[in-house]
Amino acid sequence: MIKLDPRLLNDCVVLGKFELCNVLLMRDANYPWCVLVPDREDMSEVFDLTEKDQEQLNIESNTLLAFLKKEFNADKMNVAALGNVVSQLHIHHVVRYKSDISWPAPVWGAFPAKEYNDIDLKNRIEVLVEGFETLDLGFQYFDN
Amino acid sequence: MIKLDPRLLNDCVVLGKFELCNVLLMRDANYPWCVLVPDREDMSEVFDLTEKDQEQLNIESNTLLAFLKKEFNADKMNVAALGNVVSQLHIHHVVRYKSDISWPAPVWGAFPAKEYNDIDLKNRIEVLVEGFETLDLGFQYFDN
Repeated sequence: MIKLDPRLLNDCVVLGKFELCNVLLMRDANYPWCVLVPDREDMSEVFDLTEKDQEQLNIESNTLLAFLKKEFNADKMNVAALGNVVSQLHIHHVVRYKSDISWPAPVWGAFPAKEYNDIDLKNRIEVLVEGFETLDLGFQYFDN
Repeated sequence: MIKLDPRLLNDCVVLGKFELCNVLLMRDANYPWCVLVPDREDMSEVFDLTEKDQEQLNIESNTLLAFLKKEFNADKMNVAALGNVVSQLHIHHVVRYKSDISWPAPVWGAFPAKEYNDIDLKNRIEVLVEGFETLDLGFQYFDN
């Protein structure tokens, strides 16, 4: 596994890995929010990846979006690769509700992260991990 | 061509079409900023597209990002599908500089759009259209 940027490690829980990407949960109880980090060194843009990896990222990202939308009954999914602060390539996948705290604004910079309590965090991880295992993406769970 | 959301038509100049996507220039002189709108009716999420269209969107998006980064000597590219306000599927491709007005924050909601003057807009369109014609994406120019 590649070395993850310390800011990603601080802001997220690493749940495991799909075929290409490490999959992380953002520690922000305001929204179900996953981050994909391709397991490749020294990438900052999606087009830095090989063509094959770009295709695989597209599959993993779109499959994850569809799963999250259904599992959490989202009003809309937001997906973005920004990387202005953390340059290590990572792609946000955020479940949005018309009732969420920053709707309809984007989530970045809108509100400080809301800490999960232990039970909610455990439950959220459990739901995600169980769901990821049903996707055809070769999910491997990392027991932290 | 599909009917574009009136807010996209108001905020952007329609430049033309790649194989799948209409390609628009955001009327915001703060950043070179293109928007791809897949030419498919009633789509709001990338995973609403057929698998084949998802692959084509991925190719068009990544090719566009690489072109914009090089052409405008970007420090970073930002790419996002949000759609909380305009639900018609559209994907933002924004050239970012460490010196731009909202760096390192995302561009959405950061600052009001800065109007292009006529000459700058004409020049920007010309550079983009000439560039798009060199990409292997079947670009068709729409002379507005």
